[in-house]
Amino acid sequence: MERFAVLPPGVSAGEFARAVAEFRACVGAGHVYVTPEQLVPWTQVMLPFEDEAFAPAGVVSPASVEELQRLLAVCNRYRVPVWPVSTGRNFGYGSALPATRGQVILDLKRLNRILEVDPVLCTALVEPGVTYQQLHDYLREHNIPLWLDFPAPGPLASPMGNTLERGGGQTPYGDHFGNCCGMEVLLGDGTLLRTGLGGIAGTRSWQAYKYGFGPYLDGIFTQSNFGIVTKLGLWLMPAPPAHLTFLAMWPDREAVARAVETIRPLRYDGTIGNFGVLVNDALLMTSFHRRAEVYTGTGAISDAAVRAVAAPRGIEPWCYLFSLYGRPELIELNTRIVTTAFEASGARLIAGVHDPMSINELTLQAFSLLNWIGSGGLAWFAPVAPCTGADVAKQNRLARAIMDAHGMDFFSGATFNGREVLNVMPLVFNRDDADERRRARACFEELLTRFAAEGYGFYRTGIGFMDRVAELHGATLLDVNRRIKRALDPNGILAPGKSGIHPLPGRT
Amino acid sequence: MERFAVLPPGVSAGEFARAVAEFRACVGAGHVYVTPEQLVPWTQVMLPFEDEAFAPAGVVSPASVEELQRLLAVCNRYRVPVWPVSTGRNFGYGSALPATRGQVILDLKRLNRILEVDPVLCTALVEPGVTYQQLHDYLREHNIPLWLDFPAPGPLASPMGNTLERGGGQTPYGDHFGNCCGMEVLLGDGTLLRTGLGGIAGTRSWQAYKYGFGPYLDGIFTQSNFGIVTKLGLWLMPAPPAHLTFLAMWPDREAVARAVETIRPLRYDGTIGNFGVLVNDALLMTSFHRRAEVYTGTGAISDAAVRAVAAPRGIEPWCYLFSLYGRPELIELNTRIVTTAFEASGARLIAGVHDPMSINELTLQAFSLLNWIGSGGLAWFAPVAPCTGADVAKQNRLARAIMDAHGMDFFSGATFNGREVLNVMPLVFNRDDADERRRARACFEELLTRFAAEGYGFYRTGIGFMDRVAELHGATLLDVNRRIKRALDPNGILAPGKSGIHPLPGRT
Repeated sequence: MERFAVLPPGVSAGEFARAVAEFRACVGAGHVYVTPEQLVPWTQVMLPFEDEAFAPAGVVSPASVEELQRLLAVCNRYRVPVWPVSTGRNFGYGSALPATRGQVILDLKRLNRILEVDPVLCTALVEPGVTYQQLHDYLREHNIPLWLDFPAPGPLASPMGNTLERGGGQTPYGDHFGNCCGMEVLLGDGTLLRTGLGGIAGTRSWQAYKYGFGPYLDGIFTQSNFGIVTKLGLWLMPAPPAHLTFLAMWPDREAVARAVETIRPLRYDGTIGNFGVLVNDALLMTSFHRRAEVYTGTGAISDAAVRAVAAPRGIEPWCYLFSLYGRPELIELNTRIVTTAFEASGARLIAGVHDPMSINELTLQAFSLLNWIGSGGLAWFAPVAPCTGADVAKQNRLARAIMDAHGMDFFSGATFNGREVLNVMPLVFNRDDADERRRARACFEELLTRFAAEGYGFYRTGIGFMDRVAELHGATLLDVNRRIKRALDPNGILAPGKSGIHPLPGRT
Repeated sequence: MERFAVLPPGVSAGEFARAVAEFRACVGAGHVYVTPEQLVPWTQVMLPFEDEAFAPAGVVSPASVEELQRLLAVCNRYRVPVWPVSTGRNFGYGSALPATRGQVILDLKRLNRILEVDPVLCTALVEPGVTYQQLHDYLREHNIPLWLDFPAPGPLASPMGNTLERGGGQTPYGDHFGNCCGMEVLLGDGTLLRTGLGGIAGTRSWQAYKYGFGPYLDGIFTQSNFGIVTKLGLWLMPAPPAHLTFLAMWPDREAVARAVETIRPLRYDGTIGNFGVLVNDALLMTSFHRRAEVYTGTGAISDAAVRAVAAPRGIEPWCYLFSLYGRPELIELNTRIVTTAFEASGARLIAGVHDPMSINELTLQAFSLLNWIGSGGLAWFAPVAPCTGADVAKQNRLARAIMDAHGMDFFSGATFNGREVLNVMPLVFNRDDADERRRARACFEELLTRFAAEGYGFYRTGIGFMDRVAELHGATLLDVNRRIKRALDPNGILAPGKSGIHPLPGRT
């Protein structure tokens, strides 16, 4: 008998063996992994937990929606829970790993067709496994002058995966969910739903109109385990005639509130064309240095140590990287406006800096962060602030104090969308050191609790923290999510625990 | 015993009498109407149906969420279906009337508190009965320089009611659902849910961040009967430093495709700041004339009759009304750009025309349409086109042919949001004439069927047409909506038939 690494909860070895045999019949033996050796690439979690907590029971990779439907039928029969991933590059939030031990990872990377690109309407329809790199290459090869908006792990990640997590980027189309249109969703019971106008035979409007008729459903399939999205419509940005990226830098550590107050009206009226990112000097320094080169003291890195390497590079304590887009005359006009505004706030402004994320250039540069310590420990603490200087400053003071107490370095990278600031603070730690892993986890948990106590919510979180974050957003919301979950996935086989939503009552 | 006008389906007169007594205990006798005399103001439907089809069993008007919760408990006990309305001004879509006969109208006009306006974040939190006029007056009285975005029946309508129907307006915040943030929703079983970050005690982020953590639910409460929204967050637009409205006019009836092709890139890149509206000369003429002054022939009004009154006013066959917003230098720059683009398409451009809807001025002007015939017959046919000239032209040809065949005048007013054109075509008819009412209904039904056969979907529709429109958008979507409905409103008491969603299987 086959030696399984881990069994799904409540499923016997004999039952799982039969399920696995049926998986193989669905997709071919070469696309089903279940032995401990085969699962090695899926064992390591970047988050501050023991790997065993999230150990998958297997990995299955279908090549078509029909294969996927057959797999789901097997899962329903044997009550095998599955965790769908597009490309599994959800770095710092759990990568490809499931929220609970013993799920089968449904790796959708072979569903990788670009089904349509409409250069007139500026839309696309893609499958889960399509990567940004693949779509980027497609547009170049076909000379289609449309831009993509990449998240940090751009080349490796999938537009669908990132959009379904409600990820963001740095062009004017940075709100990825806000720029998607139309989904095909496979529900837990095998129902294949097309949202919006997708249910109309022969329609060419599916990617043109989001809302459709009746309840607008797309949002419930984001950060969700209500269904497996198998096709996603995207709105793409016509390449702008010109663009110009700026770095505004404030010379004092207290400038953050002033920075936010300066940025808000320029974002509200559209002068600044993208979210931009307001970063502290420490975060910028991770692009140039490893921690050991800069600081060998105990506890969190000191401001003095950061300044010692940042100052010679001309990097000030707070820096806002943002871009203008449009016709050259418009950029000229807006340059005058942003220059006046930022200089009045005490910032120095440098025009013409290079930011690949804001200009359709694929890069992994944002992940230089992972080299800071080098062991691959990363957890994104991602609170939301109302877009006021007082709130962002308060969040930073609070986070800094908690991180200091746990000996964790304070990094801050805040982006500006609607009325909110996504004030993202990566915790980078040595995951090979059990004590540091425990400290990072305790730090993260204290951050969650104390931010929620101040009335702040969270943009997104990693496996292992999902139950707690869902709890902090309120019992009623979680209860309503559970009710919808049971309506759409009666056997609870899709991604139990995703966003804290467990199919069975009695578990948070 | 009390004489009821109509009974809820399946509820006996005795049961209803007991329910009504309990309603009175909840809200006071003065806020419960059930006799035929009391219900007269709620009897007339603008749509081409017999009034009896939608006759309500009563009207109940609570003054607080607590009263509303007690009312719902009564409804659940007696299985009395309720049809919530904010102010009930859903003109041409059903006004305050329920989708099926015998529902009790839940008139929320007394829930009319402006709970908060944040002049820094530019957000508001309102109850269902707050009108645009009320919020407008509040902003003026408090000298808060924020703009509202009004739908056509602006002063009378409610921001919540319009947003929940996914209505639109003519400032840059014209996508009303896209500019709402955070809901409080009373589910059918009495659960009071706050979406987004609203479940966090003491939060000040509820109106700042839409998506929250986990599935983004807000969309499912629009065009929906899944819950009663009792509080809604709005994003308001900072008053722009300047604005300028234009009228572009094309001299030929075939210009519509060219017009759309000209508008699309200017909307995609943000040069044109609002949806704008592309109207035919006949629709514009309803602002100046009644039909009888212009045309006394049989059948649909002829182009010649329209031209005879439009030409002397300098109105061409197709006109696009749109606005620029921002600093004066920006408007100057964009004026040059739009002038070049529209003139190249053969249009004449007039700058500085007055459009109250695009500049925060409340008006009922848009409803001059109702004077065209004068009997109050109005049904909005609202297909969606992908934003291409070919599609809009094709829709117009098809609609015109069908309307001609049924002797209905062809009006067209198309707005431009994302990748779609909402190609709205009001059917105006003499509702006092039974034959004309039948023709209008047959015309509407043929329009629906033939547009769906061409792959086109619909933005919104009125009671009486909802079942058919839901069916045209696909059986799977409707089935999924029914499953969510049953999960959130197990007794099916909220607005059965809304958007074609009936709680019980077996009815479409």
